[in-house]
Amino acid sequence: MRIYLATSNKHKLAEARHVLSKYSIEVEQKQVKKLEVQADDVERIAEEAAKRLCEQGEDLTVVEDAGLYINALNGFPGPYSEYVYKTLGIPGILKLMDGVADRSAYFKSAVAVCAGSSVRVFVGIAEGNIAEEPRGSGGFGFDPIFIPLGLNKTFAEMTLEEKGEISHRGRAFKALAEWLKKYK
Amino acid sequence: MRIYLATSNKHKLAEARHVLSKYSIEVEQKQVKKLEVQADDVERIAEEAAKRLCEQGEDLTVVEDAGLYINALNGFPGPYSEYVYKTLGIPGILKLMDGVADRSAYFKSAVAVCAGSSVRVFVGIAEGNIAEEPRGSGGFGFDPIFIPLGLNKTFAEMTLEEKGEISHRGRAFKALAEWLKKYK
Repeated sequence: MRIYLATSNKHKLAEARHVLSKYSIEVEQKQVKKLEVQADDVERIAEEAAKRLCEQGEDLTVVEDAGLYINALNGFPGPYSEYVYKTLGIPGILKLMDGVADRSAYFKSAVAVCAGSSVRVFVGIAEGNIAEEPRGSGGFGFDPIFIPLGLNKTFAEMTLEEKGEISHRGRAFKALAEWLKKYK
Repeated sequence: MRIYLATSNKHKLAEARHVLSKYSIEVEQKQVKKLEVQADDVERIAEEAAKRLCEQGEDLTVVEDAGLYINALNGFPGPYSEYVYKTLGIPGILKLMDGVADRSAYFKSAVAVCAGSSVRVFVGIAEGNIAEEPRGSGGFGFDPIFIPLGLNKTFAEMTLEEKGEISHRGRAFKALAEWLKKYK
């Protein structure tokens, strides 16, 4: 089985491929202009983008939206994590967290698929804490400052395999895969 | 002449009314769900929203999008100023600016109107600096920490009249008014 992933982010593509390969689902990158609305939750952003793709007849096309939600910052940067990464970067987040006792946060991924002209959304969450300083060179975005619950390393210190097992994105794509296996 | 402003923000409505009243243009608030896309510039966000309103046949309906662009923060919070105001607030911006020498910033407003099924966009900019601490209780959002160039008070320390003369929003709505007078 083959699906299409509407993304220009090669890291997202690699992570999706890694998870879905275990279900014998191939992932092809689709260069398509996707609609990104403003919303406080990534589920809605992914869902609206997939709806638009459905309207354009893009069957079995998947969009993923993800964000880092920091509790002490009222969920910031949340759905705008990519923009915040580009502007403030990791130093900006660490500055905002300077002297803040509650470092709890979670990553959330929403995977939406257009299948048979209707849209399904799958969500994955990874809970953890914001590190005091960046560590590791794997992953992308805020991975170097996110330590998943119960572990001593950041997402950026993990292999694709390790991250895929416990990450928000890995969980959301697994849920998609389980559903696709029944849908097929 | 009468136009419609698609907004739920009563401050924006008051500022628009104040400026446009001088041109004998009445402004009626329109409660309409507007599309807000993600984009790095407010012009595109306003334009896309107005295009959608045009498709829905909403003639002479105006949308406004605005943001505070801080140079030392690579333009942050920019188009996501409202979300950042809700989550980090003024204390978050001041924390990010702590120890930063370059406090220059600008507010930008983009006013887009659907008129005769095509869309026109008008832009207004107000340059200034980020204050060391909030001052004043007028305006809304980040007004208490924005000191326009050449003045010693923040937007929040001004009357509606004063702010309308020099603000980004005042300038964009004036440009709209000048155009509407010819369009009519």
